Amino acid sequence: METIKAAVLEKTNGTIDVKIREFPEPVLEPGSVLLKTLYSEVCGTDVHLLLGQLAGVPYPIIPGHINVGIIEKLNGALFDIEGNAFRVGDVVTFLDVHETCHTCWHCLVAKASTRCPQRKVYGVTYSAHEGLLGGWSQKIYLKPGVKIIKLPPGLSPEDFIAGGCGAPTALHAVERAGIKLNDFVVIQGSGPVGLNAAIFALLSGAGGVAVVDPAPKRLEASRAIGVDYTVDAASPGDRIAEIRRLTNQRGADVTIEASGNPLSVVEGLQMTRDNGIYVIVGQYTDAGDVTINPHLHINKKHLDIRGVWGIDYSHIYKSVHLMAKHSNRFQWRKMISKTYPLEEVEAALEAVKLLQVVKAVIAPTGLPEPMNGY
Amino acid sequence: METIKAAVLEKTNGTIDVKIREFPEPVLEPGSVLLKTLYSEVCGTDVHLLLGQLAGVPYPIIPGHINVGIIEKLNGALFDIEGNAFRVGDVVTFLDVHETCHTCWHCLVAKASTRCPQRKVYGVTYSAHEGLLGGWSQKIYLKPGVKIIKLPPGLSPEDFIAGGCGAPTALHAVERAGIKLNDFVVIQGSGPVGLNAAIFALLSGAGGVAVVDPAPKRLEASRAIGVDYTVDAASPGDRIAEIRRLTNQRGADVTIEASGNPLSVVEGLQMTRDNGIYVIVGQYTDAGDVTINPHLHINKKHLDIRGVWGIDYSHIYKSVHLMAKHSNRFQWRKMISKTYPLEEVEAALEAVKLLQVVKAVIAPTGLPEPMNGY
Amino acid sequence: METIKAAVLEKTNGTIDVKIREFPEPVLEPGSVLLKTLYSEVCGTDVHLLLGQLAGVPYPIIPGHINVGIIEKLNGALFDIEGNAFRVGDVVTFLDVHETCHTCWHCLVAKASTRCPQRKVYGVTYSAHEGLLGGWSQKIYLKPGVKIIKLPPGLSPEDFIAGGCGAPTALHAVERAGIKLNDFVVIQGSGPVGLNAAIFALLSGAGGVAVVDPAPKRLEASRAIGVDYTVDAASPGDRIAEIRRLTNQRGADVTIEASGNPLSVVEGLQMTRDNGIYVIVGQYTDAGDVTINPHLHINKKHLDIRGVWGIDYSHIYKSVHLMAKHSNRFQWRKMISKTYPLEEVEAALEAVKLLQVVKAVIAPTGLPEPMNGY
Amino acid sequence: METIKAAVLEKTNGTIDVKIREFPEPVLEPGSVLLKTLYSEVCGTDVHLLLGQLAGVPYPIIPGHINVGIIEKLNGALFDIEGNAFRVGDVVTFLDVHETCHTCWHCLVAKASTRCPQRKVYGVTYSAHEGLLGGWSQKIYLKPGVKIIKLPPGLSPEDFIAGGCGAPTALHAVERAGIKLNDFVVIQGSGPVGLNAAIFALLSGAGGVAVVDPAPKRLEASRAIGVDYTVDAASPGDRIAEIRRLTNQRGADVTIEASGNPLSVVEGLQMTRDNGIYVIVGQYTDAGDVTINPHLHINKKHLDIRGVWGIDYSHIYKSVHLMAKHSNRFQWRKMISKTYPLEEVEAALEAVKLLQVVKAVIAPTGLPEPMNGY
Repeated sequence: METIKAAVLEKTNGTIDVKIREFPEPVLEPGSVLLKTLYSEVCGTDVHLLLGQLAGVPYPIIPGHINVGIIEKLNGALFDIEGNAFRVGDVVTFLDVHETCHTCWHCLVAKASTRCPQRKVYGVTYSAHEGLLGGWSQKIYLKPGVKIIKLPPGLSPEDFIAGGCGAPTALHAVERAGIKLNDFVVIQGSGPVGLNAAIFALLSGAGGVAVVDPAPKRLEASRAIGVDYTVDAASPGDRIAEIRRLTNQRGADVTIEASGNPLSVVEGLQMTRDNGIYVIVGQYTDAGDVTINPHLHINKKHLDIRGVWGIDYSHIYKSVHLMAKHSNRFQWRKMISKTYPLEEVEAALEAVKLLQVVKAVIAPTGLPEPMNGY
Repeated sequence: METIKAAVLEKTNGTIDVKIREFPEPVLEPGSVLLKTLYSEVCGTDVHLLLGQLAGVPYPIIPGHINVGIIEKLNGALFDIEGNAFRVGDVVTFLDVHETCHTCWHCLVAKASTRCPQRKVYGVTYSAHEGLLGGWSQKIYLKPGVKIIKLPPGLSPEDFIAGGCGAPTALHAVERAGIKLNDFVVIQGSGPVGLNAAIFALLSGAGGVAVVDPAPKRLEASRAIGVDYTVDAASPGDRIAEIRRLTNQRGADVTIEASGNPLSVVEGLQMTRDNGIYVIVGQYTDAGDVTINPHLHINKKHLDIRGVWGIDYSHIYKSVHLMAKHSNRFQWRKMISKTYPLEEVEAALEAVKLLQVVKAVIAPTGLPEPMNGY
Repeated sequence: METIKAAVLEKTNGTIDVKIREFPEPVLEPGSVLLKTLYSEVCGTDVHLLLGQLAGVPYPIIPGHINVGIIEKLNGALFDIEGNAFRVGDVVTFLDVHETCHTCWHCLVAKASTRCPQRKVYGVTYSAHEGLLGGWSQKIYLKPGVKIIKLPPGLSPEDFIAGGCGAPTALHAVERAGIKLNDFVVIQGSGPVGLNAAIFALLSGAGGVAVVDPAPKRLEASRAIGVDYTVDAASPGDRIAEIRRLTNQRGADVTIEASGNPLSVVEGLQMTRDNGIYVIVGQYTDAGDVTINPHLHINKKHLDIRGVWGIDYSHIYKSVHLMAKHSNRFQWRKMISKTYPLEEVEAALEAVKLLQVVKAVIAPTGLPEPMNGY
Repeated sequence: METIKAAVLEKTNGTIDVKIREFPEPVLEPGSVLLKTLYSEVCGTDVHLLLGQLAGVPYPIIPGHINVGIIEKLNGALFDIEGNAFRVGDVVTFLDVHETCHTCWHCLVAKASTRCPQRKVYGVTYSAHEGLLGGWSQKIYLKPGVKIIKLPPGLSPEDFIAGGCGAPTALHAVERAGIKLNDFVVIQGSGPVGLNAAIFALLSGAGGVAVVDPAPKRLEASRAIGVDYTVDAASPGDRIAEIRRLTNQRGADVTIEASGNPLSVVEGLQMTRDNGIYVIVGQYTDAGDVTINPHLHINKKHLDIRGVWGIDYSHIYKSVHLMAKHSNRFQWRKMISKTYPLEEVEAALEAVKLLQVVKAVIAPTGLPEPMNGY
């Protein structure tokens, strides 16, 4: 029986390192699936995992929470949400969140399933001792009940993985924003979440979409997807002034924070019009505090601020279908700056940490043909 | 022709003082009304006016934005919103906000009329040179188009003025909060806005209402109106812990900030459950900044934060009708700590500034019989 | 081993009859519970079951979908939603809906779990061959995963069963209605759903609640719970005119149809104001068609119409807690017209069919002391 | 002083006829504007006006409620909502609705301004005796306060008038529908409202848009604007089956009724999924009744039905800006089947009545160059 290679984050004496480890092929319990991994991604969360900045992570872990692969084996008759049977050879992805309990107060009364304390996340909250439960591995074990989605016609594995976790996360943020036809939308930050938020804002019929990033060259991908404006002024005051200039001095109807910088929050509040909506989706880890003025920035502005945590099945389902429908227009695959073999995940992590790439992708079972990215 | 006395805030060499001035009786243009003032109120805004903390105030001004009086004269046939004619002798109040334009972007596109830049406010944005446009005066001139409401049966002038501007402001906050049946609601601050917010939360079918105020004796009025819990722990951490204890460690479904203290914001965010709603209505003047953590307090909590600015006609209309219906249950008049004659407005302002009173009321045309307040 | 008596609806040659049958005591699988039944109810659905008017019912069945009982046995450690352990002797109810799948399109994408095709309902969709899965039985078997709620302090079994399925159903309808403070609310029909809808409308801070029923004496219970108006005019036109008279000719802000008569729909549409909300919760079985005018009744009125199907856990959870908090005010137990022993369920069904009772209750393990109902 | 020609609907002995009448040029009161008319439109409402099917119309009238023209004169300094001055020579349109009162219960409490009883509509509720207050005239008099919008860059008069009243009406319907990203949307009817609803559904990020019309050739324009599916089956059952086939047997997330046929309502309810949304915007005149089943079509489906009446300023403002942004993609001007001179309005009315045209346009001051329409 052949062994399976995976990149593992291991913690030794407080130091976290990447190691390539070998695992035996798992025995499939009823209702489970074994995927041959085509692609996994490296996202900001993976950098936080490497730096030990997330609480409660059961190192060693196999990272890689959003993935695409080919069904190699399945035990039993399994069906997707539409009732279609899965078969060996299908190219699929799956919701990284698993074990949402549907029995707790948050699930049943608040109907806030992304705050269910029982939920587990592939590539984040499972230990490597529990199995091949992350995508930086040649194979991924899908436990019974994991929610699998076949890529729809028109959506290539490359387009899908380029969207990565940014796409469903951004979809959730855009849903929370409640963008209406003709709204002027500002996106703070041009990383994967920001770019996908810009795409979904365009698809929502925004009257104008502006992406703000102080690094001029990071805005190239935003221009490629067709946003109306890019704003790269060096100072917060100048960026706020530019958004006000574009909106007849009112500010944006909707602003979406996707930069991860706490200081962006006080800046974004001032970019948003009175009675507008400010969505915070970029603050997935604790990057520090920010000082705001409740009178000027919230009360007097009659503002709505909405945090966005996690995704549920609906977000990845809709994201995958929208990507399939609009892949020619937005060509997600071009956001892939580089595809790395399993042995080079450290370089990939470094590139993401230094913001050198739009999207870094891992191909655990072999590199595809070269593609031209941004 | 008799003269009319009013208390005026005058600014001389940068100093703002209260003076009693006399004014001639105004000539009524068509569509206008002259009220004999029964009561005006002293609210926190009036203290800010005295201290010069609001921008753009056209001193000298006659303060007093929420008022109740008797129609003494009216020029022309005037009708309320239900089509009933106003007559001399009617006891009425009116919306302090006037001249909302219905032609600007905020009025017409955003439908955010409380952010209309044309709006004027009796007792705040009109100069005394423009007429008797504030309630600290024996008579009030209601310009054509001012929206007048006759007090409904069951609502005494004393109950109405005890609610004061706090009642419609709190109603607006509670509407923004979207309280649902059985929600657990926390109110931060037990001043006039906080007390009325507690009342409207009770009327909304909250499962529990807790009022938080670090001053134990200020919570007496909250207990009198029948809130479920009062929390007076001295430290923020203890207050947060107490709210968590009352909510099975989840935090409140809805928290309403009505204290005016910027530090309350970071405390209130932590009192609110994941995916809960945090309404900021107490920060009507710039009382300074606060430091928050966007990750811990908003993003990870999947929180909604909603600022509330101003009131429109619907808020005072609904507030007046709800007060009439429930005046026996809540007995607003008992919130009046003291009623002052016009000559003692300085003492009233001082009492409000020092938080010595729940509600201070001005009676410009004579004191009523003594009442027993809290 | 003692046997357990239950009333069973059996279908023989197309005829459905009530029979008292004996069952062996079940063996408890892990995670299951055995209740000693205190009360079950007879609701309109049970009449439809007797008359064979529901499709797909697997006769023979043990009816009784909303129930209250005492935990007699439980297999394993079981906890409620707040993490409290259940113990023998606890007085509990449970959500009749079971096996909602959390894996289908309706559960995961539409988030419309009451339309999940996998859901089963105690007392309706389980056959008596499958076990003691209905409340007209001395004992009820709660399968693993059934969502159990301990009656909170202040809520007696009698109050709870008097609310019956009407309470959570009405709560769902009132949530759908989105009643706001001071809304004028009309309830069509004064049966169990209508009465509970009136109660929850009062608790929501409605400015006025009117219950409409053409049978004058059926409105007695509405008056007892304190609704503002009862309307018993004999003709639809007169009832519409009366509602318009009460609302300054505008119609109600919110109307809730809880009569079960299709003709009520065209009447209720006309009782509702322009841009108002019309909720249809009473049409749980196909009682026929109704003719409406899309222009006059919907398009020109800019109306919202909202159907309400089923309940989920949140509705019974909130309903139980609200009943506990307000049981002194509304005294649900007085709605019980008569309590029947198991042997008299036919008489109970007949009384419900003929609208002779407000609420008919079954006490399978012995009648309690007499109570004074309406 | 030259005279101005207009087409007038006159009522003589109960018969309504079109006459060409001459009017003197009006004297401009302060704040008013005189437009030279470029285009007016003929919409379904105009056919109803000719047939006398609307109540309370003050014949004789000059029809034409949505219009575009050139400012020929203006009395005073006039500004648009953004603060830009209007000048002679500007190409503008205006909101046909005027005199919304902002003082009635519907305006102030319900905030349902389209149901304000004071509102007047150019081309519908003004008599020709009151002036040039309709667009089938060489000049149009814009009373003080009429809300004027300059056509934004990119929007030609031909594109604008091709959208006509259908565009803002459809925008309102789509706003009411609350279309979310990836929703499957069905439009019933392929007339001007239906086509524009399809466009705004596409712009809202619908996952699929299907237009249903039993006349195959009427669907050509729908295909030209790029809808995903057209359905022309001859029977209601077949059309319902086709929508179900396209949606995995669930039905549409959102269905918009824009056909004007009452029977479409019962068909559309069945095309919509459980817990879906059904918007009725096509029933602007009383075309008769329809029979529905409240249980099957509303209650059991947990459906939302939303009527849509009229437009306010926000709808035409957003519609104009969206048309300007997307005029290359949707090429509204191609919907103009024929442009008629003033003398041929009867032929235009006949063509609209017989559904022979997608869009009939009136050019009162001279025909433009021929254009190729659908």
